[in-house]
Amino acid sequence: MGTWGLEGRVARKRAWKLAALSLLIAGATQAATPDRDAIKAQVAQRHDASVKALQEWIALPSIAAESRNSQQGAEYMAKLAREAGFQHVEIVDTGGKPGVYATLDAGAPTTVGLYFMYDVKQFDPAEWSSPPLEGRIVDKPGVGKVMVGRGATNQKGPEMAFLTALHAIRDAKQAMPVNLVLVAEGEEEIGSPNIGKLVLRPDIQAALKKSIGVFMPMGLQDGDGTVTVNLGAKGVIELELVADGNAWGRGPSKDVHSSLKAMVDSPAWRLVKALDTLVSDDGNTVAIDGYPKAAPLTADERAMIAKSTAARDEALAKRNLGVPHWIDDLSWQQANERLVSQPTINIEGLVGGYTGVGGKTVLPHRAVAKIDMRLVPPMTRDGAVAALKAHLAKRGYGDIAVNVSGGYDPTSTDADSRLIQSQLAVLRRDGFDPLLWPRIAGSYPGFVFTQPPLSLPAAHFGLGRGGGAHAPDEFFVIESAHPKVQGFDGAVMSYVDYLFELGRPTGVATGR
Amino acid sequence: MGTWGLEGRVARKRAWKLAALSLLIAGATQAATPDRDAIKAQVAQRHDASVKALQEWIALPSIAAESRNSQQGAEYMAKLAREAGFQHVEIVDTGGKPGVYATLDAGAPTTVGLYFMYDVKQFDPAEWSSPPLEGRIVDKPGVGKVMVGRGATNQKGPEMAFLTALHAIRDAKQAMPVNLVLVAEGEEEIGSPNIGKLVLRPDIQAALKKSIGVFMPMGLQDGDGTVTVNLGAKGVIELELVADGNAWGRGPSKDVHSSLKAMVDSPAWRLVKALDTLVSDDGNTVAIDGYPKAAPLTADERAMIAKSTAARDEALAKRNLGVPHWIDDLSWQQANERLVSQPTINIEGLVGGYTGVGGKTVLPHRAVAKIDMRLVPPMTRDGAVAALKAHLAKRGYGDIAVNVSGGYDPTSTDADSRLIQSQLAVLRRDGFDPLLWPRIAGSYPGFVFTQPPLSLPAAHFGLGRGGGAHAPDEFFVIESAHPKVQGFDGAVMSYVDYLFELGRPTGVATGR
Repeated sequence: MGTWGLEGRVARKRAWKLAALSLLIAGATQAATPDRDAIKAQVAQRHDASVKALQEWIALPSIAAESRNSQQGAEYMAKLAREAGFQHVEIVDTGGKPGVYATLDAGAPTTVGLYFMYDVKQFDPAEWSSPPLEGRIVDKPGVGKVMVGRGATNQKGPEMAFLTALHAIRDAKQAMPVNLVLVAEGEEEIGSPNIGKLVLRPDIQAALKKSIGVFMPMGLQDGDGTVTVNLGAKGVIELELVADGNAWGRGPSKDVHSSLKAMVDSPAWRLVKALDTLVSDDGNTVAIDGYPKAAPLTADERAMIAKSTAARDEALAKRNLGVPHWIDDLSWQQANERLVSQPTINIEGLVGGYTGVGGKTVLPHRAVAKIDMRLVPPMTRDGAVAALKAHLAKRGYGDIAVNVSGGYDPTSTDADSRLIQSQLAVLRRDGFDPLLWPRIAGSYPGFVFTQPPLSLPAAHFGLGRGGGAHAPDEFFVIESAHPKVQGFDGAVMSYVDYLFELGRPTGVATGR
Repeated sequence: MGTWGLEGRVARKRAWKLAALSLLIAGATQAATPDRDAIKAQVAQRHDASVKALQEWIALPSIAAESRNSQQGAEYMAKLAREAGFQHVEIVDTGGKPGVYATLDAGAPTTVGLYFMYDVKQFDPAEWSSPPLEGRIVDKPGVGKVMVGRGATNQKGPEMAFLTALHAIRDAKQAMPVNLVLVAEGEEEIGSPNIGKLVLRPDIQAALKKSIGVFMPMGLQDGDGTVTVNLGAKGVIELELVADGNAWGRGPSKDVHSSLKAMVDSPAWRLVKALDTLVSDDGNTVAIDGYPKAAPLTADERAMIAKSTAARDEALAKRNLGVPHWIDDLSWQQANERLVSQPTINIEGLVGGYTGVGGKTVLPHRAVAKIDMRLVPPMTRDGAVAALKAHLAKRGYGDIAVNVSGGYDPTSTDADSRLIQSQLAVLRRDGFDPLLWPRIAGSYPGFVFTQPPLSLPAAHFGLGRGGGAHAPDEFFVIESAHPKVQGFDGAVMSYVDYLFELGRPTGVATGR
């Protein structure tokens, strides 16, 4: 999961209430980072070593879908945490791919949670212009020097920048301003099927419960430098719908010659007929009987979207995506409202019978649709799966298997939480005018933090910029050609500043 | 194409008319093959060399769909023809994969056409129990010693048996009883897109026009020895239906993140919606608007099917195919009538977006359905394709590409033709009671011979048995464990006998 499709989109801040809070925070700002210059010097000194460390991490791809390097990836993640100063570091058996749990006790009054992923998306080297595991530094016209590699921006680049911040604070002999509790998983890209077994293990849950919230490092900047602070994410379900002659009790139990179609039923046609019932004729609206309803956008959310829509270039977005028209020829504003507010059911992949070059005259015994469904509040993963199964059964397709491989509920965090307000304070101090966005259309397992029993704020944070997540030529900017976009060292400093802001004494010390 | 799914299914002969003809022929039978014993001795002497030659041929797979070994395959086919005694042998440029044209002038009054294919179906060695290109001799319980290899039965085994017959006749110093005109193509398995450029080249067409008909070697025997003489074949069209964002002008022009489904149209859903309109709700009846109609079965055809149905074991057929129920729970007789008489539209394969292990959150810009459509008289390939295109356009799916890769019309041959009557005569002389079958459900490009300008009879012939065409562990019986099923040498002798029968002086010398 982990990408949002469109780069940061947003709305300025939320009216007078946020403005008032910002003023309060801004007053105490200068004291936030004790010897910022010393830390910055350390960041510069470490630059080459950090870039090399990121390349080495990229060279070890952990891919849960392929059961590739998961144990090694967890061990590497643990090593990186130990080197960055975490005193307790532990690999956690989740029943799936291992997780990592680590704590850094700075003796500080404030504790902050961290959510990392050490896994990356699958890749096909043939589609890349430079080797996906090399982390080669490439000149990207108009962008600067970027590192190209699988995981460069999703999520190793930002995570390495964060770890570099810890090194730099220590090397500059500054006191760590907050205690840290890190959970890192190796199954983010398959829908975090075991995230609860990591985060909610009683001792880990107890450690996280002491935190003011949890964040994940991420380069939040657009190409023009705009920074977007997101207040939540859609939920997601990944599943396969499988029509199979064996389960159906009709059609063949193995692939047979296609001429037999005249006397033998076809599981592939059955899959097509079942899929057809799931969406409207244009393929755009979920048509599952009794499907949970989405909450309408609030006035605040609509306002955020309106401001972001005005600030962003529709033609550029369409060009980047290769999309000439939004659904129903909606306006830019309407399309963005739909993006934030509507659940989706998407065909990720179709696989059945002969899939090679040309044709092969078989009647397949099995056909599969790979599906992802995005959820908005108050929908839940379990509610959506139950509705899908009930729908198929009611329409006479009860034999079609619904194999859920991962997924989770949507997640939301209050803009007034200290986790978010500290982000806004740091960004404004750095000269940014951050935008707020109600909910990214992509997904991440923030629900495990924001829902009971933890009920914590959860968000992403970081300056810097990347692109191509889940796609070929994924990159993260190392040296930026744009004055407002931060390179790797600037990203590191954003984490330094955020940690000191979070650790700053405040009248709302336990406030969320 | 080239397989019929169910092994030979049939009906005895066609009432009094055929019976009367058979008696006429039977009277002259003993003189048909001059020194049969001498030829048979040569066949036995050549046995090991013939088996080795078949293995060597199997070791060179020509696969048009993969553009693999086509030139080499044509050259090898030409070499085999030269060695078997064809005096003129020529590789023919068809615009696609090369064909082979060869003639053997025996100075005989009768000329017979031969249709060969040198190409084979794709294969995946991982699915085979012995290497697909080795042609290993394997003990198959209850069947005997069989050669396992791609092309063993479809069609190199029967073709090699035929060529061995020519060697044996020559080596036994017997006069070749007929002149031969051979056309061999390398694109049978992709629907013979260029067969007309081979067969209808003016000089080749003129040579074939002198023949009494054209046949293709094939092991026609079932596991119990039953022999089926087929009077035709369904036509076929292989095509891909492609939904693509670029052609549609909606959706993305490249794969994008699946979260964008909320604002971006999906070519994969579009393909599903278009496919849905092509067949009835159960997937079994073609629902294309204005689709050409099938002719109803004649009383003769129904009778043939009834006799075959009674002679064949339904439970065994179901078990072999892994099919617990025929369409609509039809009876064995009804299912066979449907097999012979109904056009089909079958999904061979579905390919779209991410097709690997697990999921990948993409919204694909393109999705493909690989389709084959079977045709019965009086339908034509061109008529069916035109109806499909018109249907898609009328339903608003005119952007979905219909990429036809191959195909042809159905083909039919009169049971009274000399080509068929000679088969029946030879088989009865050998103690078989051959069954007649109106039309195989599989397809081969017989139309190029049976339609104008040639308007010749066309059929398959040969004793012997194979299985697994288009599937793993394809085999051809070399030494049969069943007394009524012929092994390789028996298959060779069936061609010897057929050639002498075709060359036998008859009162209907030019009769068809």
